[in-house]
Amino acid sequence: MTQYGDTFSLWRRAAGTAWGDYTRHAFVESLGNGSLPRAAFLAYLRQDYLFLIHFSRAWALAVTKADTVHEMRLCAATVDGLINHEIALHIETCAKEGLSETDLFTSEEAPENIAYTRYVLDAGHAGDFLDLLAALAPCVLGYGEIGARLKTAKSNATYADWINVYAGDDYQSVCQQVGALIDSAMVRRLGVAPQESPRWARLCNRFTTATRLEVGFWQMGIRLGGAG
Amino acid sequence: MTQYGDTFSLWRRAAGTAWGDYTRHAFVESLGNGSLPRAAFLAYLRQDYLFLIHFSRAWALAVTKADTVHEMRLCAATVDGLINHEIALHIETCAKEGLSETDLFTSEEAPENIAYTRYVLDAGHAGDFLDLLAALAPCVLGYGEIGARLKTAKSNATYADWINVYAGDDYQSVCQQVGALIDSAMVRRLGVAPQESPRWARLCNRFTTATRLEVGFWQMGIRLGGAG
Amino acid sequence: MTQYGDTFSLWRRAAGTAWGDYTRHAFVESLGNGSLPRAAFLAYLRQDYLFLIHFSRAWALAVTKADTVHEMRLCAATVDGLINHEIALHIETCAKEGLSETDLFTSEEAPENIAYTRYVLDAGHAGDFLDLLAALAPCVLGYGEIGARLKTAKSNATYADWINVYAGDDYQSVCQQVGALIDSAMVRRLGVAPQESPRWARLCNRFTTATRLEVGFWQMGIRLGGAG
Amino acid sequence: MTQYGDTFSLWRRAAGTAWGDYTRHAFVESLGNGSLPRAAFLAYLRQDYLFLIHFSRAWALAVTKADTVHEMRLCAATVDGLINHEIALHIETCAKEGLSETDLFTSEEAPENIAYTRYVLDAGHAGDFLDLLAALAPCVLGYGEIGARLKTAKSNATYADWINVYAGDDYQSVCQQVGALIDSAMVRRLGVAPQESPRWARLCNRFTTATRLEVGFWQMGIRLGGAG
Repeated sequence: MTQYGDTFSLWRRAAGTAWGDYTRHAFVESLGNGSLPRAAFLAYLRQDYLFLIHFSRAWALAVTKADTVHEMRLCAATVDGLINHEIALHIETCAKEGLSETDLFTSEEAPENIAYTRYVLDAGHAGDFLDLLAALAPCVLGYGEIGARLKTAKSNATYADWINVYAGDDYQSVCQQVGALIDSAMVRRLGVAPQESPRWARLCNRFTTATRLEVGFWQMGIRLGGAG
Repeated sequence: MTQYGDTFSLWRRAAGTAWGDYTRHAFVESLGNGSLPRAAFLAYLRQDYLFLIHFSRAWALAVTKADTVHEMRLCAATVDGLINHEIALHIETCAKEGLSETDLFTSEEAPENIAYTRYVLDAGHAGDFLDLLAALAPCVLGYGEIGARLKTAKSNATYADWINVYAGDDYQSVCQQVGALIDSAMVRRLGVAPQESPRWARLCNRFTTATRLEVGFWQMGIRLGGAG
Repeated sequence: MTQYGDTFSLWRRAAGTAWGDYTRHAFVESLGNGSLPRAAFLAYLRQDYLFLIHFSRAWALAVTKADTVHEMRLCAATVDGLINHEIALHIETCAKEGLSETDLFTSEEAPENIAYTRYVLDAGHAGDFLDLLAALAPCVLGYGEIGARLKTAKSNATYADWINVYAGDDYQSVCQQVGALIDSAMVRRLGVAPQESPRWARLCNRFTTATRLEVGFWQMGIRLGGAG
Repeated sequence: MTQYGDTFSLWRRAAGTAWGDYTRHAFVESLGNGSLPRAAFLAYLRQDYLFLIHFSRAWALAVTKADTVHEMRLCAATVDGLINHEIALHIETCAKEGLSETDLFTSEEAPENIAYTRYVLDAGHAGDFLDLLAALAPCVLGYGEIGARLKTAKSNATYADWINVYAGDDYQSVCQQVGALIDSAMVRRLGVAPQESPRWARLCNRFTTATRLEVGFWQMGIRLGGAG
């Protein structure tokens, strides 16, 4: 099993069945066994492009809410990584289908996409750095977990490019860094026993709500692909 | 037909069929003719309580983004009106069903609710006062239009309390003020021909997206009420 | 001695000599004994009008960062109180000198004013509700303490109108409420022993920095009044 | 004379004498002729380190307020450039004096520093992308202009390292890019004749206020260096 730090393990457990609903969603399983219709994959990829735009904005917001220069640098590097690198697969794959990046950028956002991205941004505006990290974590670390699992499971080759991005060393290394960032940010603000802080339940709730919205995002992929 | 200012008329027209999808939604029509199941109404009311909490936050954000003391005062009065008055019907009706305000406040937000409220807040954070007003307008003015129409149509008495809130002089007066605020804020920032500004299309898009999310909100009422 | 809650007492002590530098500044003492030149008072009042505008924005920001509906309502009431009531003395006094509210609103902000108000707003954007309260507290509660002390000291009548605003029951009641809000907000987020939280030192630092900026604000009054 | 785009030329002219007060301040001239006391330079450098931290936060805020992916990418690259590269001279020079980066990060911010940085951040929060750019521009482009002028003037070698950073191709190229970003962002939002927009005066005011605060920043350097 993948490990991205102590806090993530606890938050994941606190999310209960929602975590499995997300990481083992029908959309994910069909990515793994290659049965996902191409139309659903492309519909997902278009929305995920828009998702990454707003997710980059949320990491940029984190730069403005960090307490240390180390926190700032890691968040700034993540913004750069997202908007200049992770997004490349989306642009490239869609280009092969005749969609330019401008087409992607001006696509209509699905409500499930709006719900998730704006929830994360608002978690940052309403709270502090920890609230924002708790809302960011399910996406970053869940994709790492999904990628690693599908890779290990010797998945079908159909969606190997996608799986390889998230199972790859680069992305797994980002997950390790983000997991460590969360752990150190928690200790810095809540002390060595964050679970005893009055904020613990609320942070778990942020993580769980974001996880629920991830479930909706996969569901959206199925809905838009006409396979739902 | 109700009139809440020039800009609203233009934005409403630009929203095309989405405006009717929202203001003449099956949920609305069944509020009017009394056929809406009580369970759907209560489910809606619980979500709408949470909606008003975040909508108040969005009007408070508008106070921080106003350019004149007049704009600030009107937005501050709206925050106060929402959180201390408009919300009263929700609290009172739910109390009769045995739900305390704490129950309401800690209810789980539906994704459709998250999508709408956080979209509005982000419109404010991403843009300026006008972007925020364009996202706030469909709710404030649409409810005014719905209330006035249902009242005129001599609706069934079942949901008369709800209809009377939005058809009432107090709420209609708020709509007039907000409509005038939008018109003057537009002229102040975009000049006397805002339609010729490069920002016009984007502001229409904000309004239309918020309108689409209103449609989702009614749909959520039906879904949660088990009637959909 | 006035008392506005446990947290305030601790923060004030942690501010060390800065607290006395602020609350017993030469500007304050000369307000009390009537020796403050009229020009300095008016220069201060013009800047303080602008200060209240941005301070209202900061309390509106607090509405967007509150965790409970009770916190929201108190902050919303404070926004209303500031922008519609506390500001009245400024408008009235300046009107007697021939300055309209538009004149006040378009005055050039002094750097000391910018430093203080924008620091408070950024404390809110960078952190959470507690960071914002720690930056707001020195002004709200310090003025309460100053007003009460000057009143008790049977000050000279010259600036009695100003003293009476802050010594008055209305303002003292606001101070009691804000002090209680801070105490409950601390317990809610940091537990019953907030001093043991890793965040304690940082919150004290917020309070002390804001206090230092208050000292600069009085100094500005003397500078602009030509008496420094 | 350096040229960083049309908008900058117009804003600079609109700033009147404040622009020269900033770019030809006594602190700047003494950097050029080598007469600046070392203590003043180091005091300035420590504050400028903190300045760059908050300036990076402001560029990160710009990422969250951009309208196009091109705007986002340029702002994200600037955050990275500031916090990982421009800041290097500060860290290196201070390290030679025995100051670690942690010493720098925990230095007490001078009020002049707070005033400037928080003003820029609030310009972004209160307004849109253009408001933020107008507040960011005087620092970015003013330093480019100062560096280029001092280099051309064959300045004394004492502060050549500093001059070379801002006169160098890398920094001058950033200035060209930022100037072009401002021009295109203006056209995109205000049309081909931004000077005719009702927002023009307000944007000039943002630029001029930030320029005034730059003057205060140099003055602070002299004050803290004991040379004022």
